[in-house]
Amino acid sequence: MFEERLRKLQALMEVSGVDLTVVGPGADMLYLTGFSDEARERPLLLMIPVEGAPRFLVPELYAHQVEEVAAFPPTHVWSDSQGPEAALREAVRGLEAERVAVDDDLAARAVLLLQDALPRASFSLASPLLKELRMRKSPGELELMERAAAIVDRSFLRVLENVTFFGRTEREVARDLEGIVLEEGAAGMAFETLVASGPNSALPHHRAGERRIEFGDVVILDFGCRVGGYCSDITRTVVCGEPTPRMREVHRVILEAQEEGVRTARPGIPAQEVDRAVRGVISRAGFGEWFVHRTGHGIGLEVHEEPYIVEGNPLSLEEGMTFSVEPGIYLPGAFGIRVEDIVVVESGGARRLNRCPRELVAVAR
Amino acid sequence: MFEERLRKLQALMEVSGVDLTVVGPGADMLYLTGFSDEARERPLLLMIPVEGAPRFLVPELYAHQVEEVAAFPPTHVWSDSQGPEAALREAVRGLEAERVAVDDDLAARAVLLLQDALPRASFSLASPLLKELRMRKSPGELELMERAAAIVDRSFLRVLENVTFFGRTEREVARDLEGIVLEEGAAGMAFETLVASGPNSALPHHRAGERRIEFGDVVILDFGCRVGGYCSDITRTVVCGEPTPRMREVHRVILEAQEEGVRTARPGIPAQEVDRAVRGVISRAGFGEWFVHRTGHGIGLEVHEEPYIVEGNPLSLEEGMTFSVEPGIYLPGAFGIRVEDIVVVESGGARRLNRCPRELVAVAR
Repeated sequence: MFEERLRKLQALMEVSGVDLTVVGPGADMLYLTGFSDEARERPLLLMIPVEGAPRFLVPELYAHQVEEVAAFPPTHVWSDSQGPEAALREAVRGLEAERVAVDDDLAARAVLLLQDALPRASFSLASPLLKELRMRKSPGELELMERAAAIVDRSFLRVLENVTFFGRTEREVARDLEGIVLEEGAAGMAFETLVASGPNSALPHHRAGERRIEFGDVVILDFGCRVGGYCSDITRTVVCGEPTPRMREVHRVILEAQEEGVRTARPGIPAQEVDRAVRGVISRAGFGEWFVHRTGHGIGLEVHEEPYIVEGNPLSLEEGMTFSVEPGIYLPGAFGIRVEDIVVVESGGARRLNRCPRELVAVAR
Repeated sequence: MFEERLRKLQALMEVSGVDLTVVGPGADMLYLTGFSDEARERPLLLMIPVEGAPRFLVPELYAHQVEEVAAFPPTHVWSDSQGPEAALREAVRGLEAERVAVDDDLAARAVLLLQDALPRASFSLASPLLKELRMRKSPGELELMERAAAIVDRSFLRVLENVTFFGRTEREVARDLEGIVLEEGAAGMAFETLVASGPNSALPHHRAGERRIEFGDVVILDFGCRVGGYCSDITRTVVCGEPTPRMREVHRVILEAQEEGVRTARPGIPAQEVDRAVRGVISRAGFGEWFVHRTGHGIGLEVHEEPYIVEGNPLSLEEGMTFSVEPGIYLPGAFGIRVEDIVVVESGGARRLNRCPRELVAVAR
């Protein structure tokens, strides 16, 4: 699997005229080698020449772990007492790399080190190459994403059954929810759980805070987990107590818009068309000015990756692409409602990975 | 406060011949402006010329937040439809920056953008400047660190009283512990809580996993939290059941070594002397080869920062420096023991910020 990804990347490099791609710890390294880590202080660099085997510069502290876990062995190991400079010069020797593409997230300490070691090379970002590869998920990747989606689906049902909302803070509800997700078998959360209650639900970027949930509050729950490195992401909106007619109306519009987005997505459709379809439903219902963010984002090893479902993105959807469809309406000072599922594009259209109910649920506690 | 930090940084830049310092989201930005965020995809850059006011390149999405929170206003705002290039060129206009220092963690996407905008400048890392500033804590910073330390101290006592160890997994114990720390008023954990039980306690980098704690296990708890951005970090070792004489012996050596480290640290002493003092106690007791890591790390807005308490670091300790003293002995296949406190250097010597008991506690559950 990793050999195949390597070959595909090298073929793309050939076409793009890139001689060397350099990737640091993070999602790209995980994708290309099965290994990643938080290593930030010490340069740990996977270097892929357009032809031949990767060169892997690894701090001594990580050498054993890379040897055990990664698809490619460390080729140049450096110790704290030597520093990475000499090992890096050795690693790039003979490559004659004129055009080097670096991981967009690579830290400056590694970028400047590379520029020192390759003083005549010109540098560009590697994302145009890597996003091409990572955007289309293989059956193995989809299986992990389905498992991650099933965990958040089951967790949401357990939240409805077991978690008390009334009188508790958003943060307390978030912690209960995360406990359930981990019990259901997630390797970890994919991002900080968002619980937005009452007027906070009208702030699309609000996180879980110290506000106590009151009777009559809308509560938006937005959370996701990881399985084998792959992410899930789901949003459901509930009401603590009885929904008002206005809440029901807005929620109906959101459900219809989300449905329309899923219906629109299929191979050959530009990403922005999905955004337009969703936005059209909301605008026709008179809420256009309150839908203030894009319709969705790609998802995989990262919670946010290509393809972005947004006006201005003409990218043609293809089989295997995975992204969120998450319309929201935010009425300032009053409440907001958002519903989000992850979908995968298949030959016949988009299929939801999330299957738990999307209705506006009234929670009695 | 932020004006003073800015002036000090500019004075250091003057001395070092740096014309422009560029900082992205992270601890350095938080230190210099009171604002930070996870913004990674969109360049958000604080640019400090050696003279005059900072220039602050901010994505539109964050402009309001920067305006509200940061000590300096956004001066160049860019939108997704324009991209950052033109705004950045405008921001660096007239600076004649020949020597530019960039935040070590700045992402390649921002580094390459800056190099495009300043094609004649030479680039180096900003950490030599910023670590000078951040190493010495002000009374206001120390107050936050004392609060963060008090929270982990109280939490450890509650863990001893309330958490069940026997038969539960390391991960379950870690989650209970984190729940207590958050209840005690932390804004968040400072890093992933480490719970290492039985033979895992002999692996210094082991994290909390699926192993179930058995009767007779040593359990190392290493955790920390944040208050106002500042970190705490503490390690205590307990035994589930009754400690063996060997465990008691190793623990005594660790306590003595840690005490000796705290006693040694004072203004004017090189950082490596503290490491030598700690290592001396452990070596004389015959465990030298099993103390396989440095004695400590600086701490503040980051869990690991300067000064590092390690052989080879001649840095002279000064009042206001904060770091960990954390000797450990790891007997492969058997058990490990580590005890860690954070200290602050004062005129009369080092003072512990952590005050909860360091004894080897036997937990009956």
